[in-house]
Amino acid sequence: MSDPVRACLIIIGNEILSGRTHDKNLPYLAEELNKIGVRLAETRVIPDIEDTIIETVNECRAKFDYVFTTGGIGPTHDDITSNCIAKAFGVENALNAEAHALLKSHYENPEDLNEARLRMAHVPVGAELVQNPISKAPGFRMENVYVLAGVPMIMQVMFQGIKHQLIGGEPMVSRSVGGYIAEGSIAKVLAEIQDDFPQADIGSYPFLREGKLGTTLVVRGESADDVNQASERIRLAIIEGGRDVIEDTGAVETAGA
Amino acid sequence: MSDPVRACLIIIGNEILSGRTHDKNLPYLAEELNKIGVRLAETRVIPDIEDTIIETVNECRAKFDYVFTTGGIGPTHDDITSNCIAKAFGVENALNAEAHALLKSHYENPEDLNEARLRMAHVPVGAELVQNPISKAPGFRMENVYVLAGVPMIMQVMFQGIKHQLIGGEPMVSRSVGGYIAEGSIAKVLAEIQDDFPQADIGSYPFLREGKLGTTLVVRGESADDVNQASERIRLAIIEGGRDVIEDTGAVETAGA
Repeated sequence: MSDPVRACLIIIGNEILSGRTHDKNLPYLAEELNKIGVRLAETRVIPDIEDTIIETVNECRAKFDYVFTTGGIGPTHDDITSNCIAKAFGVENALNAEAHALLKSHYENPEDLNEARLRMAHVPVGAELVQNPISKAPGFRMENVYVLAGVPMIMQVMFQGIKHQLIGGEPMVSRSVGGYIAEGSIAKVLAEIQDDFPQADIGSYPFLREGKLGTTLVVRGESADDVNQASERIRLAIIEGGRDVIEDTGAVETAGA
Repeated sequence: MSDPVRACLIIIGNEILSGRTHDKNLPYLAEELNKIGVRLAETRVIPDIEDTIIETVNECRAKFDYVFTTGGIGPTHDDITSNCIAKAFGVENALNAEAHALLKSHYENPEDLNEARLRMAHVPVGAELVQNPISKAPGFRMENVYVLAGVPMIMQVMFQGIKHQLIGGEPMVSRSVGGYIAEGSIAKVLAEIQDDFPQADIGSYPFLREGKLGTTLVVRGESADDVNQASERIRLAIIEGGRDVIEDTGAVETAGA
């Protein structure tokens, strides 16, 4: 078993931290990365403050295999991500000819490509553009840092355009088994199963359905064998607890890309 | 104007990072903290890994006025938050008599309070309990760190029980003004308005409604005067751009508690 390939997501934007906007990019990226064998190992939500962005990007790009940022690449004064990434890498944030051409092609009336919108054609020197088929203004990559839009629809097409560049490890396999059994009633045997399968990761998630308390156990790992063996013991534990297994997804291969 | 009181939220749980569970605690806490003059200044989502939890808690409790953690305080093997907080503070994670009594009162049949569930009565030595009227298993406070449940319903009642302890600064006032005008068309004047009101924070959020592109501008600040003056200039800018203002919340006082 090789070390997992780990990614960090940095969500940039006051609107997320104020509660105004609910982030949708974390779950999307988490699942898409899983499919190609990259684990989302941490996420940070930070405000539109230059020092914080620079510091966070520099810490995370040293610590993780890949860093994705979302947000802050539009035309307004609070869109400071490109500038901050340039500073984090110690380069200029400059007009990029390719990005400029993309924006020119998008605005029929040349007057519409005003000074504010031209900011979206500025990227750190040395960056490689990430295409945006929806509204043209590109994201970009600097080394292991991918700078993507915050609008989920645009972020998603940007990610689909670059995911072939990512080198993942073994994709994760997962299986969910659930029943109307309380977590606390099954916890002891779960701990034993976890001990017997240290390479798998067993999560326990209580739920309330139709007024009844139950638990879904999710086993995840790189080995389908491990995942299945651990899951079978969980099925047995639920049944021995006198309950029915009401949910079993079977092992789900999430290998994709 | 005093320095804002700043909080950090640490969301602990593999299920969030895998995309399985969508967090609902960030927006709730963000809005509730706003009401009492505390700003959510950063959020981290981290996995159920001991070293990561300890390191993150120690970094954030030194950096922010308040830290809130959610998740990992149940009865199963993956619930390691209490243990990690104890280690972060260099104290034992020990059976707490008050927590023990709460759990005894919750389980009618003494057998149900098994070893796994007793873990929920263990908190770091010196911690003050945070009440959980729903399922009794308490959260706790260690200095400026509040350890809360991950289940949103329980997290919310826990927070309501402790919010009187928090000492906030000036509550934020906000006003949202929107129209069918593109961000890029209004960006220049927005930057000027932002320059004129450096204490306010102007956010620009594009939207697509009924096939039409528009932008909502959100002005936030401690001074209602600033917020209103900046918002009036934004209204004017939209109108001068030849568009109607289709949304104006007026200044919303979010002082509460």
